[in-house]
Amino acid sequence: MKRVAVLGASGYAGRELLRLLRGHPRFAAPLAMSARRDSGAEAAASPFESSVAPLDLEQLRDVDGVFVCAPHGAAAELAAEAFARGAAVVDLSADFRLRDSARYAATYGRPHPAPAMLEHAVYGLTEHARSRVRTARLVANPGCYPTSILLPLLPLVDAALLDAGAPVVADAKSGISGAGKAPTERTHYGSVHENCQAYDVGTHRHGAEIAQEVPALRVVFVPHLLPAFRGMLTTLYLRPRDGVGADAIRSCLAEAYAHEPFVKVYVNGLPHLHAVQHTNFCALGVAAAGELVVIVSALDNLVKGAAGQALQNMNLMLGLPETAGLG
Amino acid sequence: MKRVAVLGASGYAGRELLRLLRGHPRFAAPLAMSARRDSGAEAAASPFESSVAPLDLEQLRDVDGVFVCAPHGAAAELAAEAFARGAAVVDLSADFRLRDSARYAATYGRPHPAPAMLEHAVYGLTEHARSRVRTARLVANPGCYPTSILLPLLPLVDAALLDAGAPVVADAKSGISGAGKAPTERTHYGSVHENCQAYDVGTHRHGAEIAQEVPALRVVFVPHLLPAFRGMLTTLYLRPRDGVGADAIRSCLAEAYAHEPFVKVYVNGLPHLHAVQHTNFCALGVAAAGELVVIVSALDNLVKGAAGQALQNMNLMLGLPETAGLG
Amino acid sequence: MKRVAVLGASGYAGRELLRLLRGHPRFAAPLAMSARRDSGAEAAASPFESSVAPLDLEQLRDVDGVFVCAPHGAAAELAAEAFARGAAVVDLSADFRLRDSARYAATYGRPHPAPAMLEHAVYGLTEHARSRVRTARLVANPGCYPTSILLPLLPLVDAALLDAGAPVVADAKSGISGAGKAPTERTHYGSVHENCQAYDVGTHRHGAEIAQEVPALRVVFVPHLLPAFRGMLTTLYLRPRDGVGADAIRSCLAEAYAHEPFVKVYVNGLPHLHAVQHTNFCALGVAAAGELVVIVSALDNLVKGAAGQALQNMNLMLGLPETAGLG
Amino acid sequence: MKRVAVLGASGYAGRELLRLLRGHPRFAAPLAMSARRDSGAEAAASPFESSVAPLDLEQLRDVDGVFVCAPHGAAAELAAEAFARGAAVVDLSADFRLRDSARYAATYGRPHPAPAMLEHAVYGLTEHARSRVRTARLVANPGCYPTSILLPLLPLVDAALLDAGAPVVADAKSGISGAGKAPTERTHYGSVHENCQAYDVGTHRHGAEIAQEVPALRVVFVPHLLPAFRGMLTTLYLRPRDGVGADAIRSCLAEAYAHEPFVKVYVNGLPHLHAVQHTNFCALGVAAAGELVVIVSALDNLVKGAAGQALQNMNLMLGLPETAGLG
Repeated sequence: MKRVAVLGASGYAGRELLRLLRGHPRFAAPLAMSARRDSGAEAAASPFESSVAPLDLEQLRDVDGVFVCAPHGAAAELAAEAFARGAAVVDLSADFRLRDSARYAATYGRPHPAPAMLEHAVYGLTEHARSRVRTARLVANPGCYPTSILLPLLPLVDAALLDAGAPVVADAKSGISGAGKAPTERTHYGSVHENCQAYDVGTHRHGAEIAQEVPALRVVFVPHLLPAFRGMLTTLYLRPRDGVGADAIRSCLAEAYAHEPFVKVYVNGLPHLHAVQHTNFCALGVAAAGELVVIVSALDNLVKGAAGQALQNMNLMLGLPETAGLG
Repeated sequence: MKRVAVLGASGYAGRELLRLLRGHPRFAAPLAMSARRDSGAEAAASPFESSVAPLDLEQLRDVDGVFVCAPHGAAAELAAEAFARGAAVVDLSADFRLRDSARYAATYGRPHPAPAMLEHAVYGLTEHARSRVRTARLVANPGCYPTSILLPLLPLVDAALLDAGAPVVADAKSGISGAGKAPTERTHYGSVHENCQAYDVGTHRHGAEIAQEVPALRVVFVPHLLPAFRGMLTTLYLRPRDGVGADAIRSCLAEAYAHEPFVKVYVNGLPHLHAVQHTNFCALGVAAAGELVVIVSALDNLVKGAAGQALQNMNLMLGLPETAGLG
Repeated sequence: MKRVAVLGASGYAGRELLRLLRGHPRFAAPLAMSARRDSGAEAAASPFESSVAPLDLEQLRDVDGVFVCAPHGAAAELAAEAFARGAAVVDLSADFRLRDSARYAATYGRPHPAPAMLEHAVYGLTEHARSRVRTARLVANPGCYPTSILLPLLPLVDAALLDAGAPVVADAKSGISGAGKAPTERTHYGSVHENCQAYDVGTHRHGAEIAQEVPALRVVFVPHLLPAFRGMLTTLYLRPRDGVGADAIRSCLAEAYAHEPFVKVYVNGLPHLHAVQHTNFCALGVAAAGELVVIVSALDNLVKGAAGQALQNMNLMLGLPETAGLG
Repeated sequence: MKRVAVLGASGYAGRELLRLLRGHPRFAAPLAMSARRDSGAEAAASPFESSVAPLDLEQLRDVDGVFVCAPHGAAAELAAEAFARGAAVVDLSADFRLRDSARYAATYGRPHPAPAMLEHAVYGLTEHARSRVRTARLVANPGCYPTSILLPLLPLVDAALLDAGAPVVADAKSGISGAGKAPTERTHYGSVHENCQAYDVGTHRHGAEIAQEVPALRVVFVPHLLPAFRGMLTTLYLRPRDGVGADAIRSCLAEAYAHEPFVKVYVNGLPHLHAVQHTNFCALGVAAAGELVVIVSALDNLVKGAAGQALQNMNLMLGLPETAGLG
């Protein structure tokens, strides 16, 4: 049995990881730690939850793998500490996603907190980085929006099916859990229910991550908040190369992911959130819409968009079956 | 005091109209009729609601205005009857929106139910049809999606600010009330809550209506269902002409609607659903997003997208202030 | 035209008041002030909202009426200031609801902030305090839970229809807006959606208010939070005196409220939240349930449970029709 | 590996069972059948779901266990057929819950469809019927409301801690999934969201089931619908015997369920729906409230209130560990 730790276990991604780890056949009970403690009230009302201990990095000595669920900035330091102790590290924050520290500084408005670590980091979009992840000691787990956008785009770029002259529009809709557990005006029930809004138009930080991974495309990415807790549905509008239609796009994706356990391409119809919530699937559907082709990409932002993909990566790093604990 | 009737008063649009009419300063209590009766159970639980009588067209004799809230197909006949009796008619269905009966047949899969009436119908996007609505005896009230899409697009087309070579993407998100009051698999709470889905991609009937009104553009329109009851948020992605940016787009809209009581253009920021629910406003915000310009258009699909705009039109037809009852 | 001010206009009750006042036929545009300013982001996204100025009590000089929507503790001081300036004051906080300052201290864990004012205060459950409200200069607007519980109980107590030996169970369910606009763990969307919980069992502060108003009864009151924004549904379980059944209970209520504009007693069936949201109604339904009688009491906690009842009271204090602005 | 079948696999309880069975370590892939077929649209959008075949009882020949998820009336026949073929049968409908066919006829308004089977049926509230379930061939799975009410009451009755002279009030709140998957006016999103209502007051059929199991008590049971999909929270109001307080009630429950895997008694605080959703737990919390004691009982109506408890029972009938597949 392997031993893993979750640092930052009281946020949404951390809690989701604890749930997945509890059912993992090859991991002992995880070490769950958090700088922030939940209130006693919450703990009393959820006695079945795994208990979360205060942060104590000394305990990482005998640990095989470490998941870092801290906010960016703070995450880099924790990841560096865990890395120094020899653990396989999956960092769920944005700290190691951008390879270029200048791009990080421009995007996050501060110098990179651990630039020396960047050379060790592998961008862990698992389906497209499997061999590098296997040998990595530090994996940067992709953002939820980039995961939902890159999985459909990368095979089409590789196959050169898109018209490079036209931008790709990515209209993304996310449940509010993506905004985290901190109580804010934005996450208040009164702000979310019966509402929908676009935010960070043209400025969302995940844009830099998407641009890094598909430099040949210009992706116009606009995130929206749904009146829902979990799930992400991205509607992509693409102009294919001349002579390429929706069927060719669908076939390309179906072939690319034919043997993937966690990416499903619909033969017909389009996925909705219910088809993927509480699962590690990314589901893709394709349809023609006038002169463009539409792809709908659906995933659970807390699973395939965070904890689930992190576990996929950790399984690979520790030499376990990639699907273990993700059944 | 004018006398008006609502035919099809037990659906969502009809009920919304009754609510607006109750507060109207120049209308007597409306005649509310419906072919479908609500169950006794519902009536018992809502004793404050206006009562709805069975359909009886004889009662339309002394009525000044008639709102038709029946489904398309059935609506045309009711509208024709009311028209024949000399009433001003606003039809909220799709029956008179398409000027060309062949386009109607292609879109709705059946011959037009009253083609001789088409020449009398005015497409009532009020802000752009005011003078024609004033003298019309039959107004086709626009669909909710077309209203949310045409209000931002028409001034830009008039001012020739868009690159005609690029399509406009209209990613529209609607509350479930747009799907009507009939219990179906799609409207079941279990299908809607915590879900989001695209539907009728490339085939939604409102596409024909949009194409008719902005023939110079190619609009790629994809509707989505939100886990919410009312409200519609459309995100438009436009390529402006060379040298035109987000500020010029915003200025054009602000100028076009400067004196409009029901269209608001944000100086900065973007509207969300809470800003427009239960009002007759369409709110527009503009932002740059990479090489494209994004417009967010928000309205309440039951008010500006249906009953409210219908009342705007009826007010004009009956020589009343356009804003009466819409305060 | 009368001039009124709203102190604490940026909370939920304050905003609801502004909405009601905007449609009031006898009030000039209200003076809206708040100690807390909304963020620029929110203001930008709601340009149709009345603007709210910083608190400046000097401006109260020429005002006829003042609504105090501040939290308890802070409210008493504002109310005293407004009172001293000669305005009619309706305080929506709990500060003047309990007549006995010792009971206040025991309930709120601090000395009463303005005990000298208590003798001026009238407990404004309008339907049962109309004549006193008319001549009052300071009205304590009842809590939302007490309003939903006292309206059904008071006529039954007056008519001596209940078995004094048995407690009354009041199981109350409230939308989250009752918890206020401050972002907290409790009001986070993630805590509210798809959840339901009892809270403050046996200790909720509204219990003291209920006990004060129906000293002859022992009311066991348990509040719950619904996964909804607005509305309150209270299910009351009563043991009638021997020989008294559900019909007699219903008749008693129907007679007591026969001429009330804002209390509706159902002839059959039971009210639900949709029947009262966005209205100033309290709706009551009665049913037999084994050896007990059940009353379901429904109201909108932000209207009849707060801003609407406050306006009823202010109308009376200023000599206007009680229903003005509440249509 | 055992072979089991699910009859009526396309409803909510059936689908939940399929999900549980998929993770069961001792069962082969279940045979899923349904008289009603889901629409192609739904199937297309959920390609990961187990496929459901048309009903064909011939296939039950080699099956060890059969879950019947059909509506009452239809269920009895299916259960009888499966029983005759020698399978262990768990019937999730109401058909075998009432031991007395006259009581069934009075409650369901029709003669019992298979009275000769009644003698074989065991009422499967697992924690209180374990030894009988082990040897049964036909288990009547309890209703969701009775499960949430009987689990807290039975130990208190056994210990004689309640005042027999006072009724027990059971105010139950349920997610809409309890009303089933059929689209009706009641289950329309427009009826459920932002709403709450009491229904079937004094007449709900689960009342007969509760009365049968705790004949010494008079339970006044009022069910309510929450604006939520899944979960049930029941607030019980009890008068204890003289000298018995909330602590004694809590201790009694804690002791009764100390070794139960699926019933948790809170040391302090009260459970909410989030603590039990998607689990087979029933969580109980106790608090004093004036002269009464309040118990809050929370469970997931689709798991412990239906599919989960059914699986507990089937495990026992087939000689497997009771917790298998219930994680």
